[in-house]
Amino acid sequence: MIYAGVDIGGTNIKIGLIDSERELIVADLSIKTRADRPHGEILEDIVSSLRKLCASADVDYHSVAGIGLGIPGIVDQHTGTVSYCANLGWRDIPVTHLVEVISGKHAEAANDANCAAWGEYKFGCCKGMRNVILITLGTGVGSGIILDGKLFGGIATAGGEAGHMIIVKDSLQCNCGLRGCWERYASATALVEQTKQAIEAHPYSVLADVAAKSGKVTARTAFAALEKGDEVAKQVVDNYIDYIVTGLINLGNIFHPNAFVIGGGVSNEGAPLIDPIEDKLNAGLIASAHNPRVRVLQAALGNKAGMMGAAALAMQNQMS
Amino acid sequence: MIYAGVDIGGTNIKIGLIDSERELIVADLSIKTRADRPHGEILEDIVSSLRKLCASADVDYHSVAGIGLGIPGIVDQHTGTVSYCANLGWRDIPVTHLVEVISGKHAEAANDANCAAWGEYKFGCCKGMRNVILITLGTGVGSGIILDGKLFGGIATAGGEAGHMIIVKDSLQCNCGLRGCWERYASATALVEQTKQAIEAHPYSVLADVAAKSGKVTARTAFAALEKGDEVAKQVVDNYIDYIVTGLINLGNIFHPNAFVIGGGVSNEGAPLIDPIEDKLNAGLIASAHNPRVRVLQAALGNKAGMMGAAALAMQNQMS
Repeated sequence: MIYAGVDIGGTNIKIGLIDSERELIVADLSIKTRADRPHGEILEDIVSSLRKLCASADVDYHSVAGIGLGIPGIVDQHTGTVSYCANLGWRDIPVTHLVEVISGKHAEAANDANCAAWGEYKFGCCKGMRNVILITLGTGVGSGIILDGKLFGGIATAGGEAGHMIIVKDSLQCNCGLRGCWERYASATALVEQTKQAIEAHPYSVLADVAAKSGKVTARTAFAALEKGDEVAKQVVDNYIDYIVTGLINLGNIFHPNAFVIGGGVSNEGAPLIDPIEDKLNAGLIASAHNPRVRVLQAALGNKAGMMGAAALAMQNQMS
Repeated sequence: MIYAGVDIGGTNIKIGLIDSERELIVADLSIKTRADRPHGEILEDIVSSLRKLCASADVDYHSVAGIGLGIPGIVDQHTGTVSYCANLGWRDIPVTHLVEVISGKHAEAANDANCAAWGEYKFGCCKGMRNVILITLGTGVGSGIILDGKLFGGIATAGGEAGHMIIVKDSLQCNCGLRGCWERYASATALVEQTKQAIEAHPYSVLADVAAKSGKVTARTAFAALEKGDEVAKQVVDNYIDYIVTGLINLGNIFHPNAFVIGGGVSNEGAPLIDPIEDKLNAGLIASAHNPRVRVLQAALGNKAGMMGAAALAMQNQMS
């Protein structure tokens, strides 16, 4: 069967057709969100783009069995209502109801980070594990939590904001109003900031040279300089890994999951990032010698995880 | 029906007979743990004490429908095995199996903090709420997590060590080997430490006077001086509350539960402790305006919660 997965971002909306048996993307496209539009217009645009995608992929629109939507805000998964979405300016929007009216199909919705976690769980790197936490290292730090094979989100699926755990009380100011949140230290944004500070302190380092040659500082810069054996870059990466591990220890001592899945652009660094995280995490967990080792895995689906997870939500509901 | 609840501590073991219909303790007693004894001897002592308790309470031992045990360590609730318990020196002990052989009754076991949470959930201050987190402020900071009406503990019920969330990275050393754990700031032990530091810095304060008159500094001292309007004590209590709230914000942003239940000796301070915690917590949570308010409640069952929760574990299993 074919399901549609939609990943709504502040800038772009990804729409895909996913084959539930073959577990792959049949076709996908991306449209501009233009978030200043009324929500009804955006949702109509999604459905008409889905129709076009079907036509171009030679899939009968009427055969699409359901639509899943990932939304960057607070979504009540049971009612399909978005209570709050800052990026889109949405408040109390009955998204699944509206999409069902427009599309004539069953619809499901969940928070985008939860969809990404669900995608990795159903199709990606942690298939078959029952307790998994996805952490995305991007502009901020997102989290999606799967407990006993189910997406967890607290009451009204409002929880799962692990990026706003306080790990350094009374320290760096966060956009959320608090100080010392994990994402101020462990996001890609934070890594860029930490790299810039190191370059300023060590203007004649290989790190500074790498940055100067590429003309900008990105989350890649420190890893690129590390590959050249630079000590300053090593310090930046080690510190950054420590910050990631701090939050993972907090979550690990609470949940002791089978695995953490690391997603977001930074996760493309692979083993030099992932392996030391797993070692330091397990060294830091309470009574780790008496518990199963917690795995740390690189996300497998990249920026398609949310779209695939959203489609999987619609599958699950349709099949149960 | 009558069930036995057993709360095994490092120093004392509490044993109670609980009436499942009337939801009350029929009779209870306490024995010394003497943790240096072999585990078999301790478990035999528990069962023979239970027999004596039945005799003294005029309850037929054979009518006791099951035994629940709360244990201060890592317990696999499904197998009833204690993989590790530092206080008792236990490793890989099949506790429920042994108790069943000795007692001739069905037995269940869980971590003691989880039992306390379960007790409050079944009989105490948070009956009917589906998502609740119990935090005990004592020597350390314990936690028991109930999600969707079920005790949560991660794989092999090893999780739930929220007291070891890092809230001030690279700061005070914790017994667990890490630095900056929540319990180094929010436990009763930490409050005593913070009170002593304030007395040293302000030797002519009302706080210092209250401590001098009672001859010692306890977790009560700062609250007693606060009742007399002391500014130094107010500072100590405000700081302490901030530390408690920091950890609750972390858990609240992850779980967004219906309520946090505060237990342990410090919770007896009641409203002057509980009310500001609830206000500051909700002010600090992400998107709090768009989510239901998270309640903060004083634990109702005191030091009987663990025993009652352990008994309730046996009830549940027997009835399902």
